[in-house]
Formats: sequence, structure tokens, C-alpha cells
Amino acid sequence: MNPVHLLQLDRVIHEKVRLAIMSMLAATPELSFTELRETLQLTDGNLTSHIRTLQEAGYLAVTKAYQDSRPLTTCSLTSAGRKAFADYLHHLEQVVHEARSAL
Amino acid sequence: MNPVHLLQLDRVIHEKVRLAIMSMLAATPELSFTELRETLQLTDGNLTSHIRTLQEAGYLAVTKAYQDSRPLTTCSLTSAGRKAFADYLHHLEQVVHEARSAL
Repeated sequence: MNPVHLLQLDRVIHEKVRLAIMSMLAATPELSFTELRETLQLTDGNLTSHIRTLQEAGYLAVTKAYQDSRPLTTCSLTSAGRKAFADYLHHLEQVVHEARSAL
Repeated sequence: MNPVHLLQLDRVIHEKVRLAIMSMLAATPELSFTELRETLQLTDGNLTSHIRTLQEAGYLAVTKAYQDSRPLTTCSLTSAGRKAFADYLHHLEQVVHEARSAL
């Protein structure tokens, strides 16, 4: 087993919750903080922490606006985030392929 | 995107170094501590810590013996470990498939 693809897996994306956030945002232009929190069943603090990590990596853009006088926070992938996610998936596919043939 | 497969990914296996250890051991009956450490370029302490986590989950068996009067530690997957790894791969394949179709 050649661990090269494994070692190249992006640690920022590999964490389960962040992988879920990236996967959800890859499928849609944007999602609100509330939609992410309810789908993934996270606390505000936990989701905020993971969003900050993705934002600091340059993978996620956060927009704060108001809707009916209530604050609305939306998240979307940046183009760097979309590229990093595609690279991550490429390496993950190789990992799955190699592990499957080893089993 | 349905996060069900993501949420079912086994956290013990999902961590990159442990995923590498499980993948290597799935492909061969056993490996020595030294072989794992050198292939994965880890410190003794780091590898010991991950092996302990896998051992506590019941996924990995550790045997200590002597070879030419020198201690030899070998690791192998338990049958529970092999099953958990197969389950993990199943969910990971679904995650890759869903994410790929979303991109």
C-alpha cells in the first residue's frame, strides 16, 4: 500500500464535520448558517469553529446580511475551496481504490 | 447532499495516520512497529499513540517478541478491525460518490 495519496489528503477538509460542510456547499451556490447547523445537528459554537477554520484556509466565504430585520449569515465555497475539494476527492478516490483492492 | 454516510464514518479510522495504518495492515498479515514508523515517517511517540487508540477500539492486535535478542513489536488487524475497516470503506465510497456527483 502506497501511502502517498493518504499523506496528501488535506487535513482542513478531512475532518468529518468540515467534509460535510464542503460537500453540502459543493452541491449548491450557498447555504445559511441555520441550514448547515440543522442538517448537521451541530451547536452554534461547534459550527462557528469549523466555519472559521475553512474561512482561514480560504475555502469558504461568509456573508452577513439582514432578512426581515433579522441577521442572516450565508456560506459559500470560494473558487480556491472548490479546487481544494476537487483535489481532496481525487486523493480520496485513490485511497478508497487502493484500500478496496487490499481487502 | 445526504450527510448520513459522512456521519457514520468511524472517527477512530478516519484520522489520516490511523487510516494509513489500517490500510497497510489490511494488505498484509502483519507489520513490525519499525516498518510502520518508517513508511509513515512518524516519531515513536506518535505511532505508539495511534496504535494504542486502534488497540483500545479492538481493531489492532500487538505482539511483543524477541528476534536475535532484540525486541520486535508486530501489529495486525483483528477480525473486528477488518470488519470495521470494510464498513468504513463502504461509507467512504458513498461519500466520494455523492460528493463527485455534486461537484
